[in-house]
Amino acid sequence: MQILLASKVSGPEFDVWVPALQQALPEHSIVTEVTAENCADIEVAIVYQPLKNTLSALPNLRFFHTLSAGINGILEDSSIPTEIPFARLADPAMADTMAETALMLTLMAHRNALGYIQQQHNSVWQALPQTPAADVTVSILGLGNMGIKTAKLIAGIGYPTLGWSRRQKTLDTINCLSGNDGLLEILHQSDIVINLLPLTTETEGLFNKETFEKMKSTATFINLARGGHVVEEDLLSALNEGTLKHAMLDVFNVEPLPADHAFWHHAKVTILPHIAAITDPKTASAVVAQNITAFLRGDPVAHIVDRSREY
Amino acid sequence: MQILLASKVSGPEFDVWVPALQQALPEHSIVTEVTAENCADIEVAIVYQPLKNTLSALPNLRFFHTLSAGINGILEDSSIPTEIPFARLADPAMADTMAETALMLTLMAHRNALGYIQQQHNSVWQALPQTPAADVTVSILGLGNMGIKTAKLIAGIGYPTLGWSRRQKTLDTINCLSGNDGLLEILHQSDIVINLLPLTTETEGLFNKETFEKMKSTATFINLARGGHVVEEDLLSALNEGTLKHAMLDVFNVEPLPADHAFWHHAKVTILPHIAAITDPKTASAVVAQNITAFLRGDPVAHIVDRSREY
Repeated sequence: MQILLASKVSGPEFDVWVPALQQALPEHSIVTEVTAENCADIEVAIVYQPLKNTLSALPNLRFFHTLSAGINGILEDSSIPTEIPFARLADPAMADTMAETALMLTLMAHRNALGYIQQQHNSVWQALPQTPAADVTVSILGLGNMGIKTAKLIAGIGYPTLGWSRRQKTLDTINCLSGNDGLLEILHQSDIVINLLPLTTETEGLFNKETFEKMKSTATFINLARGGHVVEEDLLSALNEGTLKHAMLDVFNVEPLPADHAFWHHAKVTILPHIAAITDPKTASAVVAQNITAFLRGDPVAHIVDRSREY
Repeated sequence: MQILLASKVSGPEFDVWVPALQQALPEHSIVTEVTAENCADIEVAIVYQPLKNTLSALPNLRFFHTLSAGINGILEDSSIPTEIPFARLADPAMADTMAETALMLTLMAHRNALGYIQQQHNSVWQALPQTPAADVTVSILGLGNMGIKTAKLIAGIGYPTLGWSRRQKTLDTINCLSGNDGLLEILHQSDIVINLLPLTTETEGLFNKETFEKMKSTATFINLARGGHVVEEDLLSALNEGTLKHAMLDVFNVEPLPADHAFWHHAKVTILPHIAAITDPKTASAVVAQNITAFLRGDPVAHIVDRSREY
């Protein structure tokens, strides 16, 4: 069977996927072009930011799989037939990488790594105030596979750890909250707030003037999810007015971050170029292959997207 | 009983210790001055970089306790009577803080945090090469209480972790080596080398031209122990010649690091001002008090220094 790998991205970053997926799905033929000859044969597709109208041109498409954990681009693309089931990537290796990034940034915020780097720049030798981990509350918003792994790793270091999700969850060592009241309590208590939510209609712009005002003025905000969660103007105001201490951002409203954006040279902003959890073609292809094989056999498929929940 | 707190350091940094120790040892009186009247009464002392000849002026001194984990200053001070037993500080809270620092620097080295900070400085948006933690070998030299806690924490993240100590040890999840051959193997294999050794005659200058040449040219060297472990000129040469990729240093031959030292503005050197494991007067006083009480009761005292082993 032919499986389409559809992407609007090209170049070396994309090219690595073809051999990786082909090796993970040796019984099928991975193709990257739709033609008059093959369009009726393609029943399954794998998508990486697909061009509009690519999937709608496949009359017999029964299932597709994303190569990213975030699926807001798919949901926003009205050309994609909504009746076709699809699964999103949930690669344990990606969750490990995300948890590593979150832990690194948490430690850097807690232990003032950026303050020491600045001091070195100015040849200043001075111990900065230090708080034991037991007195630093960290919250993780979004308790999917990445959020859970992150929360457990951070709690394991000794940080009091809170978790927030749309539906109430129960996790060892994590104080789990949900709902609006839970969100306010979390924002009020946390020294470090880490966003790992899915981007949905409900969570879009969740970090805005109102929510930043609920946070401690000494808090660090870490966004590792999607740029659309943040009202960037409100974040800039919160930092400039001292409502918030620092922001560490891996994702932005527009990516790559435009060269003239105020974040680049803001002393209270740390920028990562969307690398918190880079997808590894090898591990991700294995996950995708397992899920596609399950679909073709009629077995249960993991991480099928519920369009009504938007994740 | 009067207990002397002896220090050549004064000011707020020192002043916090008097109430902390007094609270931890309520049955005794903590004094900071030796006088003709009290010198014969003092049988126990607590020392924090003591002035020369302070301890030798106490005719009835039976025991003393340091407020630091490192004791090379005591061993080098020939004015201190060698027959008086003493214990060094081994505070579990300090070991936690040290392990946090080591983990933060390990993650920063592995995930290229400094590269991204530099890119932000230049408004550059670019993903840097990334290696899974499973392919990054980290070694911890020195397996005392700090080294063991650090090694376990780092192994828990998923890094293949090696440990080295003078005497062979056995630890779960850590591949432990010892001796000269073990050292060479460790230096040869490691992507990140963390020094947590005690400073002794044997380990002084251990990191020199010869040992840097044994390391990978892509390796990062992290020194969290004592400045005397490193031949700083050899480290500079290794960095300048590309024998070694980067050094992260919390301790130096001379502290504070002199304003004109080449390390300050070296692109391959990250400087911390001896803050990897700041002593917390509250937790440390409790540990010291427990040990002093044990000594006075005739019970076993933890972490008594063996002068022949130098730790």
